[in-house]
Amino acid sequence: MDAPSVKNPGRFITLEGGEGAGKSTQIQVVKDFLLTRGNDVVVTREPGGTSEGQEIRNLLVSGDKDKWSPLSETLLILADRAAHLERVIRPALAEGKYVVCDRFFDSTRAYQGVAGGLGLDVIHNLQQPVLGTTLPDVTLLLDIDPEKGLRRAQERGGELRFESKTLAYHRTLRNAFLDFAAQEPDRIFVIDADRDVEVVSADILAVLDERLDV
Amino acid sequence: MDAPSVKNPGRFITLEGGEGAGKSTQIQVVKDFLLTRGNDVVVTREPGGTSEGQEIRNLLVSGDKDKWSPLSETLLILADRAAHLERVIRPALAEGKYVVCDRFFDSTRAYQGVAGGLGLDVIHNLQQPVLGTTLPDVTLLLDIDPEKGLRRAQERGGELRFESKTLAYHRTLRNAFLDFAAQEPDRIFVIDADRDVEVVSADILAVLDERLDV
Ligand SMILES: Nc1ncnc2c1ncn2[C@@H]1O[C@H](COP(=O)(O)OP(=O)(O)OP(=O)(O)O)[C@@H](O)[C@H]1O
Ligand SMILES: Nc1ncnc2c1ncn2[C@@H]1O[C@H](COP(=O)(O)OP(=O)(O)OP(=O)(O)O)[C@@H](O)[C@H]1O
Ligand SMILES: [Mg+2]
Ligand SMILES: [Mg+2]
Repeated sequence: MDAPSVKNPGRFITLEGGEGAGKSTQIQVVKDFLLTRGNDVVVTREPGGTSEGQEIRNLLVSGDKDKWSPLSETLLILADRAAHLERVIRPALAEGKYVVCDRFFDSTRAYQGVAGGLGLDVIHNLQQPVLGTTLPDVTLLLDIDPEKGLRRAQERGGELRFESKTLAYHRTLRNAFLDFAAQEPDRIFVIDADRDVEVVSADILAVLDERLDV
Repeated sequence: MDAPSVKNPGRFITLEGGEGAGKSTQIQVVKDFLLTRGNDVVVTREPGGTSEGQEIRNLLVSGDKDKWSPLSETLLILADRAAHLERVIRPALAEGKYVVCDRFFDSTRAYQGVAGGLGLDVIHNLQQPVLGTTLPDVTLLLDIDPEKGLRRAQERGGELRFESKTLAYHRTLRNAFLDFAAQEPDRIFVIDADRDVEVVSADILAVLDERLDV
């Protein structure tokens, strides 16, 4: 009788998109919305969603842009993801919580698979043993012209290894995300992120309201 | 006419076995032997055979013994291996050099696949895109009772995360390596490492003499 009443089974929500699109900004809005509706919420991110994964993140976001080959980069990201799934995401979902994650496997597919040139088949084969059956229920794709997104990210500052890749790389990335959304319209929702923060938030909450029955 | 004459095509030799078996000691003997026969030799090791891989090695060998799950550990090792293959091993083999490596993929199979419980199929599926067709020509398995090997390693000191696993883990490891040797007798040569350094060296050089035609 002391057990917390769980309103809904756990759900897994991811935010995706290029640099500076507003993922880390909007994730707070998603969190507050879910809390207001009486849900337990775990907000997390990749890479670096665990303390040991933070050490992997540090390897990934610093150094020269060609420090890691796409294959090494993918394997580092998957090492982080494995820890994150085992120690954070799956336990929280098993307890009926909402897990909201800033970047997840679509970023690996877009960055390393398409823009990095490794190919989606290689990514799929490496990623499958890590993901198992844990896939996002809803993915919010924040879409913005990469020139605008990079400008936002540069003004903000911080970890710049990926920001230092060419504009062509970031354009390929954007198209990759949009292709994924076209292939999975029931999971991935494209949000125009080149608008005021509040307008973007309103679109996001409308999607969640409709899709999640929260 | 100034090009160095390459006596033989590149060959890939790996040293394997549990902690303290004598791999790092004997690799010097292998190097000197190959040099004496007029070969170009690259001596390297895993994890940490590249400068960026050294950063991965640091994550792997420090911290609590359960810091990484077997799956995360495998993916970190493969990230290091991918860089090592791309930037050191394959270029050297392409130039006709002998590459001698302190631990390689049999260690992943034994440590993470068998002793770590991940299973050899999972290891194979994750590892295949990384290895491609680059496999060792000759593997020297230095075999020793793990209690004796661990005592040697502890007296030597150094990186102790793997040494801190249980004796049962190290016994499983030894049996895994011996199973691999039984399955691939044309590639893996079991060397009794519980003898004086010079006696072990003599056995190793006899194997190389016969197998490599150096
Ligand atoms: N809709 C918006 N309009 C203008 N600026 C915004 C908007 N959304 C976010 N920003 C600002 O742009 C910068 C980047 O936003 P944020 O860090 O949320 O992006 P991100 O998608 O998480 O980027 P990264 O991929 O680099 O982590 C921040 O300074 C943020 O305040
Ligand atoms: N045949 C031997 N007899 C006695 N001591 C040895 C022998 N071979 C190596 N040693 C000593 O045992 C210790 C471990 O040897 P070494 O570092 O070469 O092992 P290793 O297989 O590389 O271990 P690790 O897996 O921990 O890297 C060293 O101090 C080394 O001098
Ligand atoms: Mg962010
Ligand atoms: Mg050694």
